[in-house]
Amino acid sequence: MIAVDWGGSSLRLYRLDDAGRIVDRRRSDDGALACQGRFGQVLAARVQDWDDRLIVLCGMVGARGGWIEMPYTACPAGLDALAAGMRRLDPGAQWPALAGRALWCVPGMADHGRDAADVMRGEETQAAGLMETLGPGTHRLCLPGTHSKWLQVRDGAVMRISTAMTGELYGLLRRHSILGRTMPADDPALDAAAFDAGLEDGRAGEGVLQDLFGVRTAALFGRFVADALPSYLSGLLIGHELRAALIAHTGGTVHLLGSDALLERYARALASMGVEVRRHDEDLAATGMYRLARARGL
Amino acid sequence: MIAVDWGGSSLRLYRLDDAGRIVDRRRSDDGALACQGRFGQVLAARVQDWDDRLIVLCGMVGARGGWIEMPYTACPAGLDALAAGMRRLDPGAQWPALAGRALWCVPGMADHGRDAADVMRGEETQAAGLMETLGPGTHRLCLPGTHSKWLQVRDGAVMRISTAMTGELYGLLRRHSILGRTMPADDPALDAAAFDAGLEDGRAGEGVLQDLFGVRTAALFGRFVADALPSYLSGLLIGHELRAALIAHTGGTVHLLGSDALLERYARALASMGVEVRRHDEDLAATGMYRLARARGL
Repeated sequence: MIAVDWGGSSLRLYRLDDAGRIVDRRRSDDGALACQGRFGQVLAARVQDWDDRLIVLCGMVGARGGWIEMPYTACPAGLDALAAGMRRLDPGAQWPALAGRALWCVPGMADHGRDAADVMRGEETQAAGLMETLGPGTHRLCLPGTHSKWLQVRDGAVMRISTAMTGELYGLLRRHSILGRTMPADDPALDAAAFDAGLEDGRAGEGVLQDLFGVRTAALFGRFVADALPSYLSGLLIGHELRAALIAHTGGTVHLLGSDALLERYARALASMGVEVRRHDEDLAATGMYRLARARGL
Repeated sequence: MIAVDWGGSSLRLYRLDDAGRIVDRRRSDDGALACQGRFGQVLAARVQDWDDRLIVLCGMVGARGGWIEMPYTACPAGLDALAAGMRRLDPGAQWPALAGRALWCVPGMADHGRDAADVMRGEETQAAGLMETLGPGTHRLCLPGTHSKWLQVRDGAVMRISTAMTGELYGLLRRHSILGRTMPADDPALDAAAFDAGLEDGRAGEGVLQDLFGVRTAALFGRFVADALPSYLSGLLIGHELRAALIAHTGGTVHLLGSDALLERYARALASMGVEVRRHDEDLAATGMYRLARARGL
């Protein structure tokens, strides 16, 4: 089968054998946001030399404005509920490379446990790929990104979703706020001391709205060199994200999912708080689609 | 005397009699940010028909890149310390309307009580104008704005400064984030129900980084109409600002200083938390400059 992790800004394709092992993979920047109106064309070009009949897709490809608007499966939900929410997608007749194939899309997942709901698209599939490894009991998952997702999993079901807009806010403050004015144009390498100071100030500080101004005064009074200011801002924001995310944390491992440099920062931050971390790579999405296809009997 | 409250985006001029009463006033949008390199020219044009010899200035006109870079007076500081920090400014000889006058600038104020320092320019002068009204004891002042300032005053001295970047963050999220995409281009009138829901969610929620995503899901699931989303966002942010600002609040009145529509929102928010509010207008800056000139013996 072919598993397609089609996020907002990237497209990852995996070819899996019957046992769910990845035998080939491709990646491109044709994210769902850039592919509006030409999803069939892009997919056909990417899979024409892979002759597997079953293609499973997940991620923003199933969002409003994507290829097919998939509903959200409500929490709590495990593999079976997610699999039951999958829908078959008709790619149309104009792409010979897709003719005769069965395309299925994974639904998103929604948490309506509070007035302010929460949702995800794609991360539920990564979580599905991790369920067997996690086993029974209660687990915390963190998927850092532009929008970080925190999941609470219990006995194979996602119970709670919480999204932190940390990455997007970092970018906004960096590019458009008064805080960015004293920073270099591009992000220098991580300054570990400034990052750690940001973590500490974020965890011990007032609110994030108040603590952010400390980036301004750090520049005014030369607390850090200009090249270290982005790291201080990053530490402040991640410190605040963790502070809120771990309020009800009663110990135990936090499972970090992802592969980019951001994961290093979260691992460092959690370690500095004495939280045990276990890291998992992004190929979990492929495993998740394999498990969901099996659960659906495809 | 003439008192000049020269902020980043506006210029307010007051003419005061010997008893400190305002006898005339002018206002324009010639903020300090727009006047770089032509402060003397702008001031000369505004005061040429006012023949008072003493001109006192405060605000961003004294910032780095302003007309004169004024140092920060360190907290705790009252009227006398601020007055001692005032400096005479030489406008140069090219403006006949300023010849023979004495121009004095009020310093900013800095709080170095934590690793992350805090500062203000202009608000210290408004606080100075309120000191006599406040009298002895401990008081909380809040000056809402792009950067909200929270001051702790004790026995006539500013003890602590805390800045919340609430207004700037609102603008960034409104204009540049995913949250703004589902909002109308211009801010509609306040939707009180959505604002109050934002306040409540902000006070009862997780962290602001997490709660912000609720604006996205509110749009996805139709919790509010699009025109109400900016009010919900505003309530969320102000709710979080207040939650952090009032952690150590032991009761008593919060003094709100300012004059624009934003003050209404803070008054509503504080009232909803059962906090007693007293409002004061922005002319306090003129009173502050009068008191500082007196304290300095000008």
